[in-house]
Amino acid sequence: SQITPSVYEIAVLPGDGIGVEVMQACVALLEAAQRLDRGPQLKLTRYDAGAQHYAKHGEALPERTLDAARAAHAVLFGAMGWPDVRYPDGTEPIPQLDLRMALDLYAGVRPIRWFPGLPKVLTDERAAGIDFVLVREQTEGLFYARGKGSINEAGESYDTMQITRRGTDRVSRFAFKLAEQRKRRRGQANVTCVDKANVFTSMAFFRDVFNDAAKDFPGVSFDHAYVDAMALTMIKKPWTLDVMVTENMFGDILSDLAAGLIGGMGMAPSADVGDHHGLFQPAHGTAPDIAGQGKANPGAMFLSGAMMLDWLADRHDQPELEQRARTIEAALEAVLGSGAVRPMEYGGDAGTKAMTDAVIAALPQAA
Amino acid sequence: SQITPSVYEIAVLPGDGIGVEVMQACVALLEAAQRLDRGPQLKLTRYDAGAQHYAKHGEALPERTLDAARAAHAVLFGAMGWPDVRYPDGTEPIPQLDLRMALDLYAGVRPIRWFPGLPKVLTDERAAGIDFVLVREQTEGLFYARGKGSINEAGESYDTMQITRRGTDRVSRFAFKLAEQRKRRRGQANVTCVDKANVFTSMAFFRDVFNDAAKDFPGVSFDHAYVDAMALTMIKKPWTLDVMVTENMFGDILSDLAAGLIGGMGMAPSADVGDHHGLFQPAHGTAPDIAGQGKANPGAMFLSGAMMLDWLADRHDQPELEQRARTIEAALEAVLGSGAVRPMEYGGDAGTKAMTDAVIAALPQAA
Ligand SMILES: CC(C)[C@H](C(=O)O)[C@@H](O)C(=O)O
Ligand SMILES: CC(C)[C@H](C(=O)O)[C@@H](O)C(=O)O
Repeated sequence: SQITPSVYEIAVLPGDGIGVEVMQACVALLEAAQRLDRGPQLKLTRYDAGAQHYAKHGEALPERTLDAARAAHAVLFGAMGWPDVRYPDGTEPIPQLDLRMALDLYAGVRPIRWFPGLPKVLTDERAAGIDFVLVREQTEGLFYARGKGSINEAGESYDTMQITRRGTDRVSRFAFKLAEQRKRRRGQANVTCVDKANVFTSMAFFRDVFNDAAKDFPGVSFDHAYVDAMALTMIKKPWTLDVMVTENMFGDILSDLAAGLIGGMGMAPSADVGDHHGLFQPAHGTAPDIAGQGKANPGAMFLSGAMMLDWLADRHDQPELEQRARTIEAALEAVLGSGAVRPMEYGGDAGTKAMTDAVIAALPQAA
Repeated sequence: SQITPSVYEIAVLPGDGIGVEVMQACVALLEAAQRLDRGPQLKLTRYDAGAQHYAKHGEALPERTLDAARAAHAVLFGAMGWPDVRYPDGTEPIPQLDLRMALDLYAGVRPIRWFPGLPKVLTDERAAGIDFVLVREQTEGLFYARGKGSINEAGESYDTMQITRRGTDRVSRFAFKLAEQRKRRRGQANVTCVDKANVFTSMAFFRDVFNDAAKDFPGVSFDHAYVDAMALTMIKKPWTLDVMVTENMFGDILSDLAAGLIGGMGMAPSADVGDHHGLFQPAHGTAPDIAGQGKANPGAMFLSGAMMLDWLADRHDQPELEQRARTIEAALEAVLGSGAVRPMEYGGDAGTKAMTDAVIAALPQAA
């Protein structure tokens, strides 16, 4: 349904701290990968944004950058935020939240998959089978309150959570479509609605709207879990999970928990997608403690790049881009699985450059 | 400062499902323990409440039960809730939430400690050192919205989170006092404020009020964490955690996660306390899937009973009750640590009765 260009414009927003480092690594990897195949090329153009840009120039997300993000076929995003960089009102510049709203990126897709070479976190052997996707609603929920909270003279502060039929319906359908895709690959699929319907009106509404959407996907099973019970299930038997869909704040918490199951944020990619735009970023932050030292694990950024290729492939009907995504993933998995390269994050001695070089070197065999 | 009675009146609310089973076990244990020492006696009196009581009699928390809870020295609570038992408006009868409000039980104290005999969930050996306490604010936060949510004709639903200076101050001070107690035993103590101050006005307010309270506790260190980062820390290095204090909904999610670190809810006790009342209950629910089969692990209920004894001891200056709490804990630890008894929850064959008998038999040696 989309026009099929031969060059895809990618707006690259490295951001702050290790965002810059893992982005440099990812751009090198994407460019190396596209030299190896005959698929469409990505044109990767860097734009300024972030807390440090704000500190220097008074803008966290310049108009020029937002325009470029809007005009691009996709956005590749590093990480943004920096200690003590605050707006005059004390709040933090968080361009990633602004972009979710501005580009209507309603589905935060956060896949968690264990593969050999990743740390074994849980003692249960079945944890090797962890392979699930959390879909976080990203345009409403509790985050609706951002910038709207109040404090009164009686010392009471209020923030309001919003759940709409439209917002819940579209993110539920997104989760079911994702499950349908997974079913084609894996033979079965299930979507779990994660809420707190036993206590909150808005959460009972979320569940109702989810149930309505489910009717249009008879090929996919579904069930429900309370968010507290899901936090426990994620530790007790995460290998039983498939696709989950949940409210914004709950998704924020559960996705960090989920990353913990594969050793931390270093291998947790994410895609923020809507009907018109897609932004791809590692789930980690700017890691001020290790920034500038070449120690960051670029794995999550690489996997985010692969998610971008998959999304472009699907959207523009370009199977070669999907193939390229598989090549990148396979190269990363081969490098980690062989044990030749162990990221510093997991106690090894491979920094950003060593990992990047190794994955790029593994591309030809992986292709 | 309290009158020192020689008999303590305990309102016992077994509730539904396995609540009834673990309560029977706990009452037997408490009565056996008090026969062995010369400390003050507990008079344990059962009262009706719960979803099944509602289904039969139209009331989930009868006035008589609420009065008894108010008049008692402490409340011992099993678990309440039952599938498909709903009020006419579709919401669930949840007497434990009503009691938190009615008795102003603002601090939900949820300790998590690993000891030999519990499942090893994390591969890291340091997980044997897990010993922290989550303090959940229980009278406001997002739960303030319970029963107040709205849905409008445009298909928008709203629930409002409330954070007050008074509510945050008292629960922060509670956490610092708890940390002071732990410092006396362990030599050091830290309180972590868990919030989302980077995004929400109310959460930034929570952090500010916490920081103000901290000034009155110079002997205890403190720090801050965003709730998503804390979910990750709980998996990556839970042995570094000490006392945490957080908003109601965040505490609900994090406490289930925390229980997962020691194998599930079966050994996770909790205390709901305020300035005038205390209610003690296992963190688990009514477990309809195993209810009535004698399979439930009474461990969390036993530990909740011990927390009640500790609270009474402290409040009424009765060291013998504290000693009794230690005896119960020691007996439970001895039984599990010896491996003689392995709860069904952990794949063993010991049901409720076998565990109860073993712990009661171990009391004399533990004393
Ligand atoms: C940076 C922060 C505001 C953001 C969020 O809470 O959404 C991050 O934690 C995430 O998960 O993308
Ligand atoms: C039963 C439920 C409403 C309750 C809560 O959410 O507080 C429970 O999960 C808890 O943690 O005590």
